[in-house]
Amino acid sequence: MSLLIRGGTIVTAERMARADVLCADGIITAIGPDLEAPGGAVVVDAEAAFVMPGGIDPHTHMELPFMGTVASEDFYTGTAAGLAGGTTMIIDFVIPGPTESPLDAYHIWRGRATKASADYSFHVAITGWSERVHAEMGILAQRHGVNSFKHFMAYKGAIMVDDGVLLNSFARALELGAMPTVHAENGEAVFHLQRSLLAAGITGPAGHALSRPPAVEGEAAERAITIANVIGTPVYIVHVSTEQAAAAIARARATGQRVFGEVLAQHLVIDESVYHHPDPAFAAAHVMSPPFRAKHHQNALWAGLASGQLQTTATDHCCFCAPQKAAGRDDFTLIPNGTGGIEDRMSVLWHHGVRSGRLTAQEFVRITSTNTAQIFNIHPRKGSIAVGSDADIVVWDGAALRRISASTHHQNVDFNVFEGMEVTGVARHTIAGGALVFTEGDLRAVRGAGRYIERPCFTPAVPRPAALDSLVRGA
Amino acid sequence: MSLLIRGGTIVTAERMARADVLCADGIITAIGPDLEAPGGAVVVDAEAAFVMPGGIDPHTHMELPFMGTVASEDFYTGTAAGLAGGTTMIIDFVIPGPTESPLDAYHIWRGRATKASADYSFHVAITGWSERVHAEMGILAQRHGVNSFKHFMAYKGAIMVDDGVLLNSFARALELGAMPTVHAENGEAVFHLQRSLLAAGITGPAGHALSRPPAVEGEAAERAITIANVIGTPVYIVHVSTEQAAAAIARARATGQRVFGEVLAQHLVIDESVYHHPDPAFAAAHVMSPPFRAKHHQNALWAGLASGQLQTTATDHCCFCAPQKAAGRDDFTLIPNGTGGIEDRMSVLWHHGVRSGRLTAQEFVRITSTNTAQIFNIHPRKGSIAVGSDADIVVWDGAALRRISASTHHQNVDFNVFEGMEVTGVARHTIAGGALVFTEGDLRAVRGAGRYIERPCFTPAVPRPAALDSLVRGA
Amino acid sequence: MSLLIRGGTIVTAERMARADVLCADGIITAIGPDLEAPGGAVVVDAEAAFVMPGGIDPHTHMELPFMGTVASEDFYTGTAAGLAGGTTMIIDFVIPGPTESPLDAYHIWRGRATKASADYSFHVAITGWSERVHAEMGILAQRHGVNSFKHFMAYKGAIMVDDGVLLNSFARALELGAMPTVHAENGEAVFHLQRSLLAAGITGPAGHALSRPPAVEGEAAERAITIANVIGTPVYIVHVSTEQAAAAIARARATGQRVFGEVLAQHLVIDESVYHHPDPAFAAAHVMSPPFRAKHHQNALWAGLASGQLQTTATDHCCFCAPQKAAGRDDFTLIPNGTGGIEDRMSVLWHHGVRSGRLTAQEFVRITSTNTAQIFNIHPRKGSIAVGSDADIVVWDGAALRRISASTHHQNVDFNVFEGMEVTGVARHTIAGGALVFTEGDLRAVRGAGRYIERPCFTPAVPRPAALDSLVRGA
Amino acid sequence: MSLLIRGGTIVTAERMARADVLCADGIITAIGPDLEAPGGAVVVDAEAAFVMPGGIDPHTHMELPFMGTVASEDFYTGTAAGLAGGTTMIIDFVIPGPTESPLDAYHIWRGRATKASADYSFHVAITGWSERVHAEMGILAQRHGVNSFKHFMAYKGAIMVDDGVLLNSFARALELGAMPTVHAENGEAVFHLQRSLLAAGITGPAGHALSRPPAVEGEAAERAITIANVIGTPVYIVHVSTEQAAAAIARARATGQRVFGEVLAQHLVIDESVYHHPDPAFAAAHVMSPPFRAKHHQNALWAGLASGQLQTTATDHCCFCAPQKAAGRDDFTLIPNGTGGIEDRMSVLWHHGVRSGRLTAQEFVRITSTNTAQIFNIHPRKGSIAVGSDADIVVWDGAALRRISASTHHQNVDFNVFEGMEVTGVARHTIAGGALVFTEGDLRAVRGAGRYIERPCFTPAVPRPAALDSLVRGA
Repeated sequence: MSLLIRGGTIVTAERMARADVLCADGIITAIGPDLEAPGGAVVVDAEAAFVMPGGIDPHTHMELPFMGTVASEDFYTGTAAGLAGGTTMIIDFVIPGPTESPLDAYHIWRGRATKASADYSFHVAITGWSERVHAEMGILAQRHGVNSFKHFMAYKGAIMVDDGVLLNSFARALELGAMPTVHAENGEAVFHLQRSLLAAGITGPAGHALSRPPAVEGEAAERAITIANVIGTPVYIVHVSTEQAAAAIARARATGQRVFGEVLAQHLVIDESVYHHPDPAFAAAHVMSPPFRAKHHQNALWAGLASGQLQTTATDHCCFCAPQKAAGRDDFTLIPNGTGGIEDRMSVLWHHGVRSGRLTAQEFVRITSTNTAQIFNIHPRKGSIAVGSDADIVVWDGAALRRISASTHHQNVDFNVFEGMEVTGVARHTIAGGALVFTEGDLRAVRGAGRYIERPCFTPAVPRPAALDSLVRGA
Repeated sequence: MSLLIRGGTIVTAERMARADVLCADGIITAIGPDLEAPGGAVVVDAEAAFVMPGGIDPHTHMELPFMGTVASEDFYTGTAAGLAGGTTMIIDFVIPGPTESPLDAYHIWRGRATKASADYSFHVAITGWSERVHAEMGILAQRHGVNSFKHFMAYKGAIMVDDGVLLNSFARALELGAMPTVHAENGEAVFHLQRSLLAAGITGPAGHALSRPPAVEGEAAERAITIANVIGTPVYIVHVSTEQAAAAIARARATGQRVFGEVLAQHLVIDESVYHHPDPAFAAAHVMSPPFRAKHHQNALWAGLASGQLQTTATDHCCFCAPQKAAGRDDFTLIPNGTGGIEDRMSVLWHHGVRSGRLTAQEFVRITSTNTAQIFNIHPRKGSIAVGSDADIVVWDGAALRRISASTHHQNVDFNVFEGMEVTGVARHTIAGGALVFTEGDLRAVRGAGRYIERPCFTPAVPRPAALDSLVRGA
Repeated sequence: MSLLIRGGTIVTAERMARADVLCADGIITAIGPDLEAPGGAVVVDAEAAFVMPGGIDPHTHMELPFMGTVASEDFYTGTAAGLAGGTTMIIDFVIPGPTESPLDAYHIWRGRATKASADYSFHVAITGWSERVHAEMGILAQRHGVNSFKHFMAYKGAIMVDDGVLLNSFARALELGAMPTVHAENGEAVFHLQRSLLAAGITGPAGHALSRPPAVEGEAAERAITIANVIGTPVYIVHVSTEQAAAAIARARATGQRVFGEVLAQHLVIDESVYHHPDPAFAAAHVMSPPFRAKHHQNALWAGLASGQLQTTATDHCCFCAPQKAAGRDDFTLIPNGTGGIEDRMSVLWHHGVRSGRLTAQEFVRITSTNTAQIFNIHPRKGSIAVGSDADIVVWDGAALRRISASTHHQNVDFNVFEGMEVTGVARHTIAGGALVFTEGDLRAVRGAGRYIERPCFTPAVPRPAALDSLVRGA
Repeated sequence: MSLLIRGGTIVTAERMARADVLCADGIITAIGPDLEAPGGAVVVDAEAAFVMPGGIDPHTHMELPFMGTVASEDFYTGTAAGLAGGTTMIIDFVIPGPTESPLDAYHIWRGRATKASADYSFHVAITGWSERVHAEMGILAQRHGVNSFKHFMAYKGAIMVDDGVLLNSFARALELGAMPTVHAENGEAVFHLQRSLLAAGITGPAGHALSRPPAVEGEAAERAITIANVIGTPVYIVHVSTEQAAAAIARARATGQRVFGEVLAQHLVIDESVYHHPDPAFAAAHVMSPPFRAKHHQNALWAGLASGQLQTTATDHCCFCAPQKAAGRDDFTLIPNGTGGIEDRMSVLWHHGVRSGRLTAQEFVRITSTNTAQIFNIHPRKGSIAVGSDADIVVWDGAALRRISASTHHQNVDFNVFEGMEVTGVARHTIAGGALVFTEGDLRAVRGAGRYIERPCFTPAVPRPAALDSLVRGA
């Protein structure tokens, strides 16, 4: 079962070079010019195309039970849509309730994910604190390959945690060598503003953005960074959407602190005007948290990616169909939060990032896969084109055109926030686990083909000099 | 003529993995576990060591005629000392006088450099402006592999240029796809302060630092960045030594501008107290520009490297012996400016950077070779451990100790600014051009073995979307 | 009962001019050159001296019940010590427990303060939230002249409030036209660090500073500012002690937000080295929150005052004697927090501010009285030398020397944090309410002479255009 | 010859209070409630109005010979228009050519200004450097009441100076106790861009803005501030129009450096869209330097004024009529630079500043007169409502409406950049030198009534502790 990618230009985080790539048994076995195709090998044409690591989306919520409903995209349909767009792995979230067992929840999510058609892994959310949570973080980190724990600073009354929980959990993560991650919005402020807006009769989707102003995100980012600083741990801020949060990250990094920031493809190109659309269902379809922002924030996000102060891109893929969104028709706080994007992230970033001159092709690879793989310690298995790496590859036609639409996408949702956008940059072929799963428009995703990917603790993306000696001395 | 590096852990900008490395005819021909040594191959032991790209020092001045004397280190001795420290390539500077021909000067420097024992390349300084300079920049860029032009904003009355020259030269570099670089100090301010200090009777080396305060560097960096912004070109700031300049770079990058910054190993660990040493010869031995700074600037430089806002490290290796330095005994402005460091840069950065927990091993590789190779467009030939790359490799013992001293160093100078420093991290073997040129303390540098390395224009480190299409379509 | 100040140079926030000042019945009745002394008038010599508004200390805690004891300085002794140093008014704090009535507490504090020898007013702390608190804020603001409410973001388990309380209270203050003020330290982080340090066996006073690092203050300042921004209210940050908090204030002001910052005289000149003193009692005597900081923070505070980004100076005068401080001998978290300074603030600021060239004499007046009077809306009754203003005046000998010592001070505490400091700048005479209460070293404070000063809401220091029309139209 | 202002609310930089104001012989002689009008006194009605110091415009160019023509507004017409808008004093500029004598030029300008109807003073421009210039700066400062010297960093080939001149002149100003001021634009960059734009066929007024991008101003501000820092002198930046320059000032002030910034009323409310007007004459009428900017810069300027980081407002009043502007019809670099505004500054600032809630009434007074008077050391003679101050007063109706138009203004120019703007806030009466020169629309300016105002060196707005002692000891 081998596969040869012929005639392309390999692009990795570090280099660009013309070479063929041979895959067998799910891994890359050879890279070089003019490789021979073994007997029976599938030969994939990469002429005039880039051969890049398959995208990794570090932030998805497949079939998430949330706000009284369940996300429409399941692990099979969601990962399949990702494959159609060149994304070959996701990191989803296990989200227990505040008094539930993270370990039990982990097992529940593992069960749900068995249907995935691409590899996957899990961040586990810490939504409350107890001795049991402390203990289970250890079990998850040491036995189940969970090296990152998520914290919601918003969603008061549901999964929001206070600073006391952050402090305890960050300290525990430090011991374990795991990465704390945060959804940075001041949930108390959001709650207060929601109440005020509803009291003032503002019940439509525009209230959603008004209840979550940029300062509320910037403040929470600053707070999470401070707590990480006090504890002495790195920290990863999910879905940075504002100048303020980007600046908070940059300020911390300028002192040497290890802070990482993730940006959603959606925030890079969509602005807050969507909430003022005459059709409230259109506006509701864009309700997510953090919300879309005034346009000038987009410049800060692009510059953060270009300068390396922000490292990863994601989608927070969390789909709800119009009938689900309608639950908040009379009260914006009841609109299920979330938008989709896993299928389009790579194209949107290529078009608006690389074709526009904001990013180099290598930077594109870094922010779509390599940095995520390194930060979450699955590199070079993932996020790399190298002998021995998993054969998760996208053959990317950087000049091909595509028009994004819900009517043609593979995502299991009735809306596309990029509807009508013409993008240059299309996945010609996607190879996942060595198999050709998407080729020239033909999606061949296999239910259950995805594997759970364990992520060991103590990422080398963060300095730990003591670990170096043991490494070379043959641990 | 082959060579096998056995048993080490390869570290590149992107990854870390145990593998052997086979070199033949000066290039890397195979990487993998347990490679066979071909008949007659030299086998190099890398057990418990890191196998990394040889260092590139992007800022040296071998045998430079300067301030009435000539730097004591020539291209042979200087590159040899580099090899002893794990550095396998330099980028030196061609510096014509303001009315001289850059092209003629280039040929003079090419002649001098033939004695080099390691590969080398040249930045060419633009010290005046004329039609001829404009034309010769084109010849140098298009026929001689010069893709970077240096500008001195200091040294009034000698090689300083004003903003008019910067604007013309930056605009020309933009056309050519070359990188403008600057020595950022406000030379008018320095001149004014020098006159004031001498007039006030301050003639000793302490006056050197007083005449070049941090703000003078920060201002010039800001100005060069603004001029680059106005012209629309990237820019590279050499020897960033202050918080102010580092902050100016970070501010520009936060808007998406492509600005790169270089740090000298010396500025990272030596502070301004050296100028107050009771022995004026000791103080004079530290006179360089920019001068050593108050300690807090070091934090900003380390954090800049860790956060990726500063990209490269160098030494500005420019050696003068005590009798040369004595020319400024009665007037600090006559002390030849320069210090050495090419032999020690890698150890100093490993010890104070990696062992201290400020940097990861991969970041070390980025800042000692890969980023330089990418910015100046000689990657992956240089700065990489990959099949097809030049066999310029250092086998690095990350736990070995070394005590730095002028009495033992290979540099042709009678002083070492790191004198007495105990560093962990030593080059066990250095391979240059496939040859074992330094091994366990034994330096086997060969006069003339170094080659001139052409550097093509239009570095891929800067976004140029149009170039992508031609690239994959096989231009 | 009249009094003539003769021969001095009047300095106000706005101007400097030689003139005599005549006071009668507690107010200033005339200002001009060579005024006649009415029959029986006390004549006060101001030759070669400055005649300035008496100092206002906007942050004191007289006879505060705190941490199991009661501050040693009562309203009489404390205000008397202030008079000896040129301070003629204080704003103290009413601090109810979280479930207590702010209004009841207000009355209790009013009772305590009747013994004061100088005028006083009260900020009221909001330490919990309920309908009753909401209602009583209105009563206090509208009937009792309380126009500022204080919030503690630290002291977990005691008087700390969470963001929900801040939001509710700031919103209520906005309605009332009152000023929210905050003690900005992240109390959860402090608590966590206290537990960690004690667990690590660090029980001495050094632990106090370690448990309250600068980032913990910067974060809380940022958070309070964000909450004020979201609510749309000005905010006043008490005892700013760090670069981080000063920078947070400056950033907010650079967007037009109305944020005010107060600095303690102690933080301007004392650094964290005091906590490493060999005598633990000496170290404990310096325990206050925020703690003393590394020296470089002082520059940021001085520059904040000079640039006008920080507006007021205070002392947080809260005295505990050695036996009281000893309660924390084995556990730094039990040391009563607080230091004194009301008597020395003016001298310390003159010496280190004006004599050192950091501040002008007019800036000294602004930061010692006028800005406080304006922000808290008692100007021009207080903080002014003008006809009709209260005759609260200090005749300041800007060239006289004084050596600060607990052995000579009038404060009712056995320690002085400025012990041994020689300062230039001494109150020659202090006039309070028109009476000469301190003259050339002779303190004539009268128990009970102080009056409660009502402070109306809607300070003109914050733009409120609607208020302007009613003002001129004869409200 | 006395005059009583009855029934108004006095607003000064420091306070607001209802009081009458009595003037006699050109100065304020009494302030108080219900003053008696002396026999024969003019009684001015100030009911429901504010009584404020007359505006001072610190930046005008009356009858300036510039770019081949002469500004249309002369000292008489210009100061008269100012009186109609509530401005009672100007500081204009003496501008010698680079090789001309500043002292001779000063006398020429003194001659021109004798026709002024309001008080005036002069900044003197230093446009070249020589021993003579050095000497004449002393004569001007010590004998002619010139305490500020202006430097143009733009206008290459005309009056631009390089950094060498700045350094020499700032150092001389420091000795003299005079204030250096700068027009901050990098003239080399402007020149380069002008050539490039013209070469590209961009000859219309839009080219003007393109040739002077914001970074070019920010850079020059940073450079001037650095030079001031190096020399140890305060510095005043005229017409700050960008975020970048405002941020450079704030950054310097945050280190304690004394930097002052001036904003033009025009930049606060007009944006760069004017240069894209279909009528090139309309666009040309807006050509001034720095040019109008993108809207977001306005927020930074307003916030700078509100936070006190920018201190003064001006107009750079420099009028050219349409036929004069037409000189640049085919080449934007030939359009005479300048716009008018002296008559409207106060109304525009009141309407957009105070009425909009950005500024308090006292802040309005500070930025329209008091700060200028203090920085340039003519306070409290000017910029103050106090006994002994010059009777330069505006009775301001803060609620009256006015529609700005060239068809009704008193300025001697055929265009008004505020054309059609409806503003609330009108001068009801203007009193200059004790005379009622404008009353309810009736302008009674007297040619030649204005006096030259000497401004002594060593402003108290900058700390000079040594000066304090001599002051109080009766120097």
